Amino acid sequence: MPDAADRNAAFAGARVVITGGLGFIGSNLALRLVELGADLLLVDSLLPDSGGNPFNVAPVRDRVAIEIADIRDARAMRSLLAGCRYLFNLAAQTSHMGSMADPETDLEINCRAQLTLLEACREVCPEARIVYAGTRQIYGRPLYLPVDEKHPLRPVDANGVNKMAGEAYHILFHDAYGIHAAALRLTNTYGPRMRIKDARQTFIGAWLRAALEGRRFEVWDGTQFRDVTYVDDAVDAFLLAALSPAAKGAVFNIGGDRLRLGALADALVAANGGGGFETRAFPAERKRIDIGNYYADDTRFREATGWRPKVAAADGLRRTLDYFRVHLAEYL
Amino acid sequence: MPDAADRNAAFAGARVVITGGLGFIGSNLALRLVELGADLLLVDSLLPDSGGNPFNVAPVRDRVAIEIADIRDARAMRSLLAGCRYLFNLAAQTSHMGSMADPETDLEINCRAQLTLLEACREVCPEARIVYAGTRQIYGRPLYLPVDEKHPLRPVDANGVNKMAGEAYHILFHDAYGIHAAALRLTNTYGPRMRIKDARQTFIGAWLRAALEGRRFEVWDGTQFRDVTYVDDAVDAFLLAALSPAAKGAVFNIGGDRLRLGALADALVAANGGGGFETRAFPAERKRIDIGNYYADDTRFREATGWRPKVAAADGLRRTLDYFRVHLAEYL
Repeated sequence: MPDAADRNAAFAGARVVITGGLGFIGSNLALRLVELGADLLLVDSLLPDSGGNPFNVAPVRDRVAIEIADIRDARAMRSLLAGCRYLFNLAAQTSHMGSMADPETDLEINCRAQLTLLEACREVCPEARIVYAGTRQIYGRPLYLPVDEKHPLRPVDANGVNKMAGEAYHILFHDAYGIHAAALRLTNTYGPRMRIKDARQTFIGAWLRAALEGRRFEVWDGTQFRDVTYVDDAVDAFLLAALSPAAKGAVFNIGGDRLRLGALADALVAANGGGGFETRAFPAERKRIDIGNYYADDTRFREATGWRPKVAAADGLRRTLDYFRVHLAEYL
Repeated sequence: MPDAADRNAAFAGARVVITGGLGFIGSNLALRLVELGADLLLVDSLLPDSGGNPFNVAPVRDRVAIEIADIRDARAMRSLLAGCRYLFNLAAQTSHMGSMADPETDLEINCRAQLTLLEACREVCPEARIVYAGTRQIYGRPLYLPVDEKHPLRPVDANGVNKMAGEAYHILFHDAYGIHAAALRLTNTYGPRMRIKDARQTFIGAWLRAALEGRRFEVWDGTQFRDVTYVDDAVDAFLLAALSPAAKGAVFNIGGDRLRLGALADALVAANGGGGFETRAFPAERKRIDIGNYYADDTRFREATGWRPKVAAADGLRRTLDYFRVHLAEYL
């Protein structure tokens, strides 16, 4: 692997488009790419239930172009993608419960719009390197642990079905048309700029908000294992996936710090220097779409790109709380 | 397992809906269900490029209800599905090349309409038993043989992506809502009433037509292994999947007679009592979406239902040719 500085020089002056660019991971990626000198266009629909928040990119607002547009608008996308060299495709409907209440909207965003976006790329930027933000949700309840990329797919909600299809389109456009696409199956990602208003992005958002507001939060069950990925590690993964030849046409699990949810809750209380939580049984309507233990085997990505997660939960949660203590009002 | 007569008594007087009911497998299923005394509604859009052909059900036209309707019309589907006890869901866009030329139409039929159909079932016939016609196409190029249901999915065309999503919705509606759905991953199915005008359903259609018209047909490569399933065996599989408690919520491979394509071509010439074929290299635009050898491990379905394919290729091809010799004009 080239070292990080050489590698990241590829982005200097390059046209980079981020869909979902005002969202949680998209904005953190944007901040990094501004540092690397990219010519950056952030596309975001700012749908009320999404993670998009213009404040997320306040530190770089003068150094990026921002377009409020919806990936479902194929004509707009064709025009915005012209000349794109790297596309980080993060725009999504992310709510699991929301996808069951309104599966057709989820389908439009997570399935159909992915297809039309890829068709636009074929047309206006066929050489662009595309990294798609997939999700471990598509595996459903693990049949074995850790879960590798060969694990059967059995999504437990409409979001999972549509994200599975959206990812498959990316790989298909690689296989059939030579498009330089890769997909990352992310797990629970957390950090500064995440949506903490509610649990739409991940339960960690709701926990963080409660801790910041001095309320006790609820932990369901607490014995389940999860990987949690600090957003800076996720940003590293996206950059590496865009640059590594071995990532072309491939699907990768992304792991992080593996711990039980009870231990994660303890770490959050410790990082917060106070507060607490209640452990309770899973609510019935969540239990139905819950997946039990999950942690990833991400050997394939580590071997293809040299990626390693660097930030443990205790540290990541402390940094996250530091950010939100200063900016809390912008996120409620 | 109950014996076949007892088992099939379940269909007597029962409201059964077949989407794609004028198509190849749908019409063969319809003929069998009429024998079993079902109260049958055949829904078909008769799209020009599909396998729908009213002549397919000529022998039972007075004993079935036929509705020319498109599964994309959610309102029509809600009304047609009221009171349904068994739904055989076979309507699909089936052309692989067509799905690459117009992936959005394929998505509408094979993905979105499946979701809206299932939502209609939840609303108007939540107790219906549903069997979905899936496809082995979603596996893509086999990583190992025989392919079992745990094999990773990597569709090689848009049809595969959308059929994968359509199948996953069925399983999701089982897991999340208790809908009695099962999916069969069919391989190359052949027999009377198939589309032989061209190769849209499977290459066997084009071979049959050529043989019937006294022309030599083209075999690409010829060394590849395939399972071929005679349609009566596929019909048995659908009926068993609807009736077997063990099929609820499950996905099954369906195999058949395993042979090399060259041997299948020889069997066709022998069954035809004459004619011949040319073996040539794969055309470039097909090679890209070809999957190499494929044959299924269908142990899971055999164990769950007692199903066995009964008709070998030599016999099935003879029966198929017998049918088309009499009715050829109706299929060109």
